[in-house]
Amino acid sequence: MLDICLLGTCGMMPLPNRWLSCALVRNGSSLVLFDCGEGTQVPWKTLGWGFRQLGAICLSHMHADHVAGLPGVLFMVAHAGRTEPLAIYGPAGTAYVIEGLRRIAPDLPFPIHIHELKGGETFTLPGGLEATCTQANHGIPCLAYRVDLARRPEFQADKARALGLPVQLWKRLQHGETLEYDGKVFTPEQVLGEPRRGLSLAYITDTRPTPALSKLASDVDLLICESMYDTRDDLPMAHANGHMISEESAGIAKAAQAHALVLTHFSPKITDPSQAEKAARRIFPNTRAARDGLVVTLDFS
Amino acid sequence: MLDICLLGTCGMMPLPNRWLSCALVRNGSSLVLFDCGEGTQVPWKTLGWGFRQLGAICLSHMHADHVAGLPGVLFMVAHAGRTEPLAIYGPAGTAYVIEGLRRIAPDLPFPIHIHELKGGETFTLPGGLEATCTQANHGIPCLAYRVDLARRPEFQADKARALGLPVQLWKRLQHGETLEYDGKVFTPEQVLGEPRRGLSLAYITDTRPTPALSKLASDVDLLICESMYDTRDDLPMAHANGHMISEESAGIAKAAQAHALVLTHFSPKITDPSQAEKAARRIFPNTRAARDGLVVTLDFS
Repeated sequence: MLDICLLGTCGMMPLPNRWLSCALVRNGSSLVLFDCGEGTQVPWKTLGWGFRQLGAICLSHMHADHVAGLPGVLFMVAHAGRTEPLAIYGPAGTAYVIEGLRRIAPDLPFPIHIHELKGGETFTLPGGLEATCTQANHGIPCLAYRVDLARRPEFQADKARALGLPVQLWKRLQHGETLEYDGKVFTPEQVLGEPRRGLSLAYITDTRPTPALSKLASDVDLLICESMYDTRDDLPMAHANGHMISEESAGIAKAAQAHALVLTHFSPKITDPSQAEKAARRIFPNTRAARDGLVVTLDFS
Repeated sequence: MLDICLLGTCGMMPLPNRWLSCALVRNGSSLVLFDCGEGTQVPWKTLGWGFRQLGAICLSHMHADHVAGLPGVLFMVAHAGRTEPLAIYGPAGTAYVIEGLRRIAPDLPFPIHIHELKGGETFTLPGGLEATCTQANHGIPCLAYRVDLARRPEFQADKARALGLPVQLWKRLQHGETLEYDGKVFTPEQVLGEPRRGLSLAYITDTRPTPALSKLASDVDLLICESMYDTRDDLPMAHANGHMISEESAGIAKAAQAHALVLTHFSPKITDPSQAEKAARRIFPNTRAARDGLVVTLDFS
């Protein structure tokens, strides 16, 4: 199961009633944060998921509205007692910016491991999430992310029983171990069913639409996607600023054959995101506009 | 007249219902900000005083809860159209921290002039406020500030009339100019009354009490002072962390013969600051505990 909280939904700047766009993903007890604008720690406190289990932060790019909250979040994680390493992923330039921001957070009780990515890499996030990323198109180095949580094939007890294996050995096979019993070798394949669909989500923000983004989000259960603007009249601005109107976000979801689309990162001028939602639904019906604090839960079907 | 807004009142970290402690001072159309923790821009937007007229920021010290909001505020000032220089005052290390934080705010349409102070300097803030500062005692370089707004002596029209000066020349004398008329020299002293008391405030935060702080705040109309803790039980913590209990803040106000005391920078564990207020009033009766957004107006008596 994955819980995803959209802590904020605003682009550019925090507003009195809207936090900056980011997403906190909970996988068991592990937490992964996507982007960290000014104020991110505040709605996080309200959420009650704790800070200690934050194992990784994936940053899309180095604009202030996506990273300025880092020192505050690092302090909260320290305050919560973390001593295990924290990984920070981001595009070229991430280490330079973090070195700058950490001038006000120099002493932390946990090491920070920074990974600068070009796009195309795969890596493992805390809790066993498999992640990958691709370059976005925002004028500066910017990454879109995808994470997958694998599901184990079903354990077929009848097959294990037919093989004459004692129950106490079943778990080892179920977890992928090959073992010997009574002079014979047994492999997981002998007792496991067909591969099963896992859970997946993509986080795409601050970009024009590109085919690579649709490919990244292929068949995801949830696509979290920016919708800086809500009408076609804003297309010139979207082009100029490297953003999207909600119909374009929906276009990515449609091309990706995503299962659901959540829109976020609305321009401060959008006071009611229902227009963005309505426009997107004409292209991708299973769309909803996020509100601050929205929690989406993905569960194995 | 001076308007002072306590945009936030929390120490250490922003909370869902409390912003970080700072003070915004409005003098005519000029704005001066004292400290700038994470999120400062948000209640400022609600206040409606605008950002363009921010001419100076006075930073007490380089802990994150007093400076992390700088990039966001600088962006808001830029967004509001400022092109005139912005001065930033702070203790040793200010330039290093600002260079780090500006890695996410490198391009601004106004120059920033950084002034690192040792304590004891005097300088002029936008709008003609005369400022000074003294070292606080917080374990790292930390400054307390005082600002004074001078009041012009009363213009005595009867004296000007008796001198036979035409009305159209009065203003020049009133503004301190010496002038010649009808072959004679006239000086402002000939038409101005006695010196008059101006307005003054002191901003003291993140420090143990010291005699120098009481001296700095001597006879001020308003002392804005931290009160991290509210009971004597917290004294060991106050000593350990370089902070004060509210009775100590009141002690500074009393020794300084300040006219009014506003307490702020409450520990996150203080959910109701009325206990801090009550304790302080036993020592300095004209005390109030600030709430976020409190505006205090100082007017010439």
